[in-house]
Amino acid sequence: MAADQVKALIYDVFGTVVDWRSSIIREGKALGEAKGVQVDWSQFADEWRKDGYVGAIQKIHRGELPFTTCDALMRTQLDLMLPKYGIEGLSEAEIDHFSKAWHRLTPWPDSVSGLTRLKKKFVNSPLSNGNFALLTNMGKFGGLPWDCIISADVVGAFKPNPKAYLGSCTLLGLEPDQVMLVAAHVNDLRSAQKSGLHAAYVPRPREWGPNAAPADPTDPAFDYTATDFVNLAEQLGT
Amino acid sequence: MAADQVKALIYDVFGTVVDWRSSIIREGKALGEAKGVQVDWSQFADEWRKDGYVGAIQKIHRGELPFTTCDALMRTQLDLMLPKYGIEGLSEAEIDHFSKAWHRLTPWPDSVSGLTRLKKKFVNSPLSNGNFALLTNMGKFGGLPWDCIISADVVGAFKPNPKAYLGSCTLLGLEPDQVMLVAAHVNDLRSAQKSGLHAAYVPRPREWGPNAAPADPTDPAFDYTATDFVNLAEQLGT
Repeated sequence: MAADQVKALIYDVFGTVVDWRSSIIREGKALGEAKGVQVDWSQFADEWRKDGYVGAIQKIHRGELPFTTCDALMRTQLDLMLPKYGIEGLSEAEIDHFSKAWHRLTPWPDSVSGLTRLKKKFVNSPLSNGNFALLTNMGKFGGLPWDCIISADVVGAFKPNPKAYLGSCTLLGLEPDQVMLVAAHVNDLRSAQKSGLHAAYVPRPREWGPNAAPADPTDPAFDYTATDFVNLAEQLGT
Repeated sequence: MAADQVKALIYDVFGTVVDWRSSIIREGKALGEAKGVQVDWSQFADEWRKDGYVGAIQKIHRGELPFTTCDALMRTQLDLMLPKYGIEGLSEAEIDHFSKAWHRLTPWPDSVSGLTRLKKKFVNSPLSNGNFALLTNMGKFGGLPWDCIISADVVGAFKPNPKAYLGSCTLLGLEPDQVMLVAAHVNDLRSAQKSGLHAAYVPRPREWGPNAAPADPTDPAFDYTATDFVNLAEQLGT
């Protein structure tokens, strides 16, 4: 069993540990009420995530954009979206605060209790394309019991670049087969496996909201498939 | 007051947070008893620290040695010292385990309670010349409530290189005057101040054992001087 060999669990964060979508909708609604502006915040959240983050990271992989931080990507995208959605008259401090809504994402209901159990047996670290400050602040905001923070700016690469997975192992002083990625996204898990890491799939079917398509089916090549982090802790005997 | 401006506390670790000397003596005595060998473990601990770590880092600063990790420095020194002290017949696994005694250092009695209070108000991170794996494992071993881990291998420099202090601020997304170094060593604090960080001095007069010279006097230029971490928490209003 992988659990006998694995010393550290590294976690995808956006969608896997935290519910980014409802958190951004919540922050958007608060801003809209304060400023008296009507916005479809579900659409806003999805566009911010898809174009500002997923799309921008793909451009960085293709060499069309230089390496930068998640914070910078989110701010660039927000600056494009504010006029498009008719959100006007914000001060620089208000824009900065809203842009850092990504530091204030709420964990899924099982995340803190599951991580607390898993921490008893394993080193628990994010491995996220978020940046170090974002993940550190999010950990404090949500009470996530991380042992350390591993981020794109620490390993110098965005997932699914192998440098991200292998750089995490180097930092932790472990061989790839002593580390397991926990993620809600099958592509992330398959990339980790290509670098020799173990893989635990925790589908989060509501990541993209109540009307999203079902989560991808699991892959028999994954070491574990769990319904949530508490279930993963049970399967890993902690 | 610095406390109104400061968002993150970064801590020197060896000597400031943990009592490395008595921990290494404890690990050495256990090894000596298991192997039936008599060693002056106080002398052994002091030599391992002075020559393997302090001296080696000075050589790296002067460009006489390439950048490497604390783990590697400690292992190189241990390989020199084992025959010198007549410690023979250890397996590779036993040498590796003993070399990683530096991952199993015991906190000073006030460290965990003080850090727990300080964490309520500030981001709490080590900034140590130790490496990421060492500091992560030490945090778990001692129950140190870090929010994240900042280490020499993450910032790519050993203190007192300004890159270590300024790189920490960049990772945390903060300006230097929003960060305060907490340390038992005045030189470390003065170097941090030269890079624009705040400084809190917590003398640890027993770092080098019961017969050591008194700790260095404080400097009126430091923002705070505290008797221990609990006292620092009181002074910082948390």
